Amino acid sequence: MKEKVTIYDIAKALNITAATVSRALNNNPKISEATRTLVIETAKKMNYEQNRFALALKSGKSNNVGVVVPFINRNFFSSIIRGIEEELYPKGYHVIICQTHEDTKKEEETVQNLLNAQVDGILMSVSKTTQQLRHFKKVLKSNTPLVFFDRIKEIDGVSTVTIDDFQGGYIATKHLIDMGCTRIAHATVDLALDIYKYRFEGYKEALNDHGIPFKEEYIIKTKSDIDAGEKAIKKLMKLKNAPDAIFSASDFAALGAIQELTKLGVKVPNEFAVVGFSNEPFTQFMELSITTVDQSPVEMGKMAARVFLEQMKEPTLKIMKKVELSPELIVRKSSSSLTAKQQTNI
Amino acid sequence: MKEKVTIYDIAKALNITAATVSRALNNNPKISEATRTLVIETAKKMNYEQNRFALALKSGKSNNVGVVVPFINRNFFSSIIRGIEEELYPKGYHVIICQTHEDTKKEEETVQNLLNAQVDGILMSVSKTTQQLRHFKKVLKSNTPLVFFDRIKEIDGVSTVTIDDFQGGYIATKHLIDMGCTRIAHATVDLALDIYKYRFEGYKEALNDHGIPFKEEYIIKTKSDIDAGEKAIKKLMKLKNAPDAIFSASDFAALGAIQELTKLGVKVPNEFAVVGFSNEPFTQFMELSITTVDQSPVEMGKMAARVFLEQMKEPTLKIMKKVELSPELIVRKSSSSLTAKQQTNI
Repeated sequence: MKEKVTIYDIAKALNITAATVSRALNNNPKISEATRTLVIETAKKMNYEQNRFALALKSGKSNNVGVVVPFINRNFFSSIIRGIEEELYPKGYHVIICQTHEDTKKEEETVQNLLNAQVDGILMSVSKTTQQLRHFKKVLKSNTPLVFFDRIKEIDGVSTVTIDDFQGGYIATKHLIDMGCTRIAHATVDLALDIYKYRFEGYKEALNDHGIPFKEEYIIKTKSDIDAGEKAIKKLMKLKNAPDAIFSASDFAALGAIQELTKLGVKVPNEFAVVGFSNEPFTQFMELSITTVDQSPVEMGKMAARVFLEQMKEPTLKIMKKVELSPELIVRKSSSSLTAKQQTNI
Repeated sequence: MKEKVTIYDIAKALNITAATVSRALNNNPKISEATRTLVIETAKKMNYEQNRFALALKSGKSNNVGVVVPFINRNFFSSIIRGIEEELYPKGYHVIICQTHEDTKKEEETVQNLLNAQVDGILMSVSKTTQQLRHFKKVLKSNTPLVFFDRIKEIDGVSTVTIDDFQGGYIATKHLIDMGCTRIAHATVDLALDIYKYRFEGYKEALNDHGIPFKEEYIIKTKSDIDAGEKAIKKLMKLKNAPDAIFSASDFAALGAIQELTKLGVKVPNEFAVVGFSNEPFTQFMELSITTVDQSPVEMGKMAARVFLEQMKEPTLKIMKKVELSPELIVRKSSSSLTAKQQTNI
């Protein structure tokens, strides 16, 4: 196999350094017009093929941005990715997507892999199982911009884009209280993760603000899937003083809850109200549509992309930005025919 | 900035070619043990940092596999990707995911970008708008294995994994006939794409086999989204001889159809039966669950990955494989209470 012509060959032919050749090919303003013209003409003569990745190795610019999420098949994450792409693609960046399946080992490997691939930046949401921060520090050390969205770790120098999960938990719970519910359960996923912790705290604060005592037995730790929601209801409905509503930190668990309640003959929303979280598309499709908290994920993605672009514009500055979006309650049938009743009573 | 030590520096120091250095670092069996030891020790002494991508440029192996799909937020595609990852990750490969949004220009750029990134293979589903094959031929020319899944183009040397869409269209339509429907409409998406063409042909064949005349006015071209399904029903129900069933090549359009039928006061399934295609999760979640055709996407992904691995094992062979999976009809409420009625009549 014939060896390809490299920038080292061009450098040798012109008796200049490979760095100068690289800079000339990359239109670095430090290089004079005369040198640039000379390098480009020589490169052409020697049949030098510009390989963007070889270029990236020298210039540190690949025009690729790595996006790492736990799962691509959650509408929340795929919508964030859509937002990122809508913002970055017109600016000439390609988005490379990787999923970790909530596996911290896979996350570490993925981050290392993206660094090896010379991406210009990494935008990511942290896996539930991630404890140590070694791989993130490696990213910072390599001067690659790192932006966390939604699921974050507090690391000096890392920008974050989140929604106000406390507010999300608060408005969801307040809504159930406004609907007349007084025994409100909460299904959480993992209180070690900030997003779930803040939703839980918003829930507690709303109860407190409305004089409803907090009950430990109403807190159920579940996975964020349908089965988990079914199990949560089975457990809750066996309590002596069973709840009359649930605020689930996951739409999937909310769906499972409704399915189990229906099986048990409990009428939703008249006897039991349900609120989910995330505004997954199916919550809207159901005949018994599910009340949920929208996190404007497309907007979150755009924001994360803009934070990255800002950093790229000012490579000599270290920019650390914290952006927090506001969640929005979307009231649907699983919690709202009570309102209809109240309204007709007026 | 200090220039990094490259294989060219090591080559110069040892007075051997850069290719030899590269081969030694890559454990190429053509290199003697003595040379390998010498190169590795020199590299260590010179503080040479192995950059996997720099290595990839020389060795042609990055352990990255590119997966390109139109959208990641369709359960069908995200499940295929899951299957690919389940098969490739234990073999040491990382999966890089890119989406084209059905944009052929973006598809071309993405493929070029993956080639630049020195991926070891590209597994992809072709965008609806793709006509020309230039970018695929570039992949073949670079000796990078290319595997098409689901949406394919017939190209010499490219392996494909598909499901039998003809059979899918046939069993969906036959089921509606078995349920007693006689005026069966078909919502298709784009007959220029093989998958939709074959589903349509399966539909026609099933009608023909059961002595039901084909009617052009029952064929509606839609997008694969909810709105499109609503529009299709609006149009169909205005016909003099309105249909009593629809086989939709898209689950989303099937959902829209059901929503519009409900609005019009037409009872599903008693007055009008609906069958979708793809087994998107929401089809199962609905209280009026939707009959659909499952395409075993996880299996399809695993199969595509296995075809790729087979090619990697035999780099000197050109392997071209065509694998076709069988679809499965999943009968749910949107077409089946008729059966229930028939059964109670027995």
